[in-house]
Amino acid sequence: MTSHSYYLGIDLGATTVKAGVVSALKSQILNLKSQKATVTAETADQKGTVVLQRIIDCARQAVVQAGLALSDITAMGIASPGPIDIKAGIICDSPNIQGWRDIPLAKLLSEALGPPAILENDANAAALGEYHLGAGQSVAVMAMFTLGSGIGGGVVIDGEILHGAHGFAAELGHIILVPAGRKCGCGQRGCAEAYASANSTAARAVEALRQGRESSLSQLFRAGRQLTAKDVVDHARQGDALAAEILDGTAYYLALLSLNVRAVVDPQLIVLGGGLAQAGDILLSAVRKHFKEQGWHLQGADRCRMELAVLGNQAGMIGAALAAAKALGR
Amino acid sequence: MTSHSYYLGIDLGATTVKAGVVSALKSQILNLKSQKATVTAETADQKGTVVLQRIIDCARQAVVQAGLALSDITAMGIASPGPIDIKAGIICDSPNIQGWRDIPLAKLLSEALGPPAILENDANAAALGEYHLGAGQSVAVMAMFTLGSGIGGGVVIDGEILHGAHGFAAELGHIILVPAGRKCGCGQRGCAEAYASANSTAARAVEALRQGRESSLSQLFRAGRQLTAKDVVDHARQGDALAAEILDGTAYYLALLSLNVRAVVDPQLIVLGGGLAQAGDILLSAVRKHFKEQGWHLQGADRCRMELAVLGNQAGMIGAALAAAKALGR
Repeated sequence: MTSHSYYLGIDLGATTVKAGVVSALKSQILNLKSQKATVTAETADQKGTVVLQRIIDCARQAVVQAGLALSDITAMGIASPGPIDIKAGIICDSPNIQGWRDIPLAKLLSEALGPPAILENDANAAALGEYHLGAGQSVAVMAMFTLGSGIGGGVVIDGEILHGAHGFAAELGHIILVPAGRKCGCGQRGCAEAYASANSTAARAVEALRQGRESSLSQLFRAGRQLTAKDVVDHARQGDALAAEILDGTAYYLALLSLNVRAVVDPQLIVLGGGLAQAGDILLSAVRKHFKEQGWHLQGADRCRMELAVLGNQAGMIGAALAAAKALGR
Repeated sequence: MTSHSYYLGIDLGATTVKAGVVSALKSQILNLKSQKATVTAETADQKGTVVLQRIIDCARQAVVQAGLALSDITAMGIASPGPIDIKAGIICDSPNIQGWRDIPLAKLLSEALGPPAILENDANAAALGEYHLGAGQSVAVMAMFTLGSGIGGGVVIDGEILHGAHGFAAELGHIILVPAGRKCGCGQRGCAEAYASANSTAARAVEALRQGRESSLSQLFRAGRQLTAKDVVDHARQGDALAAEILDGTAYYLALLSLNVRAVVDPQLIVLGGGLAQAGDILLSAVRKHFKEQGWHLQGADRCRMELAVLGNQAGMIGAALAAAKALGR
């Protein structure tokens, strides 16, 4: 018997929804059935009812594009930003979608489409995706940072997402790196997210420019353009000293964050993902350098690697399908 | 069938070795068979061969005092400070015992006494002890800090010690709280251990006195007495402002440490153990206050309790026996 099972993954992002089908043989993940056929739809600034319908349409299309019917799908997983109640499958409050509060999304989608569904934190899902089909395929313990507007975190131990007692584990972006430091959106001070996310990297650049620092970024800034982390990366690459300093600061804080995550979960691999990780080697090599410089040289110091994510923006969708396979697979 | 299994726990401390027998019915831990009859022997400043013989003697005596024979013991667990190789059962390098380097202690004890043996990090063992027979009996996920000369850490998830990929997980004292901060014995800067251990609490008091701060501690200090964390606690209790400030600093850093551990493992309970935790409520209430003030008020903020350890200096011994029961129990 080599009959496959199929799992539908749905990634509910800030502005789009993506859906795709993952094929599995028993617990072994074989491939992404519709890798070339991922279905995407806009969800930005839409009402909750519209978004729900778009998710349903996306899911149906992904199944069709994979050459399957909904009855072929064993289970579905939805990756969503927090705050969510993973166990109950409920979106507690959506920062992006109007009127979504205490929405039992897993139940609604299961009723609309048929297969049973689970909900998972988007960064947890991305980590699970990288663990099984991306950068982490040969490791037992892996941590991942998703560097975007914030910093999402995920930890996978022996193939299982670390959920903690209430589903709030691996909020790695909210590890406090600087006592009484920069204010974070979460209300704490000094969180990693307040220093090393894409948004905070851009914000630190803007602050330096406001202080009158010279930089090739000044022109963009004076022209009223909203600076992005990509601007900082681009100008650092072109040799701008301030941009390089800001990016190096991001790398320094990511290294401290990595050391703290290593102290708790002792991973073999830490993966940098999300938009800012597209900076590539200029970021990765700097994080590695600071990680080595700031870390202890005792046992195990050299047993934690650091790599870039490889699944890009499909990690969450793939991981959601895998999470469904783990929770509801047969 | 209600036949019991018996597990021998051995705690190899910096200056003494302790042994005791724990009774278990299947996986359920029933009691500490020889709680009143724990056997202790000095190990300070002894050669490795002498220490090994004392451990063996201690273990034999504990079994006799429990009214048992060595043949009644299903397995043995040894709790030891690091650096150790948990999987291999090897003491890599002992800071306390002369000539102990790459000592296969689990194998040596098993050969000398009969039952199979495992080695466990002392702070991990203490956490497992508190989880099953101490402060953590009703929780699924628990973290513990052992506040002594350093800060040991242990995390227990669904009854299992979090070991990580190489056995170095839960080195919670080496979470970096202050970038480029105080130098830690591990070589890093700004570790929690460099601020909030018993030794670091005393060191911070001494530094303040050297800076000329007024305090009732000054007399002890001028008399050439080596200040301890207990002095700081005692004088804080008696109303000394500097001692209170130093102790509050310890509580502040323990709160930041707790928030960082919460961000990674989402425990229901954080337990404060070790010598400094004997300060009791004056420390616990201050840590709780800072934890609440510094932490986010988002979901789950109120779901992590903080309590004092209850097993005192027997936690490691008990936990070692439980770790043996888990690894080698029948």
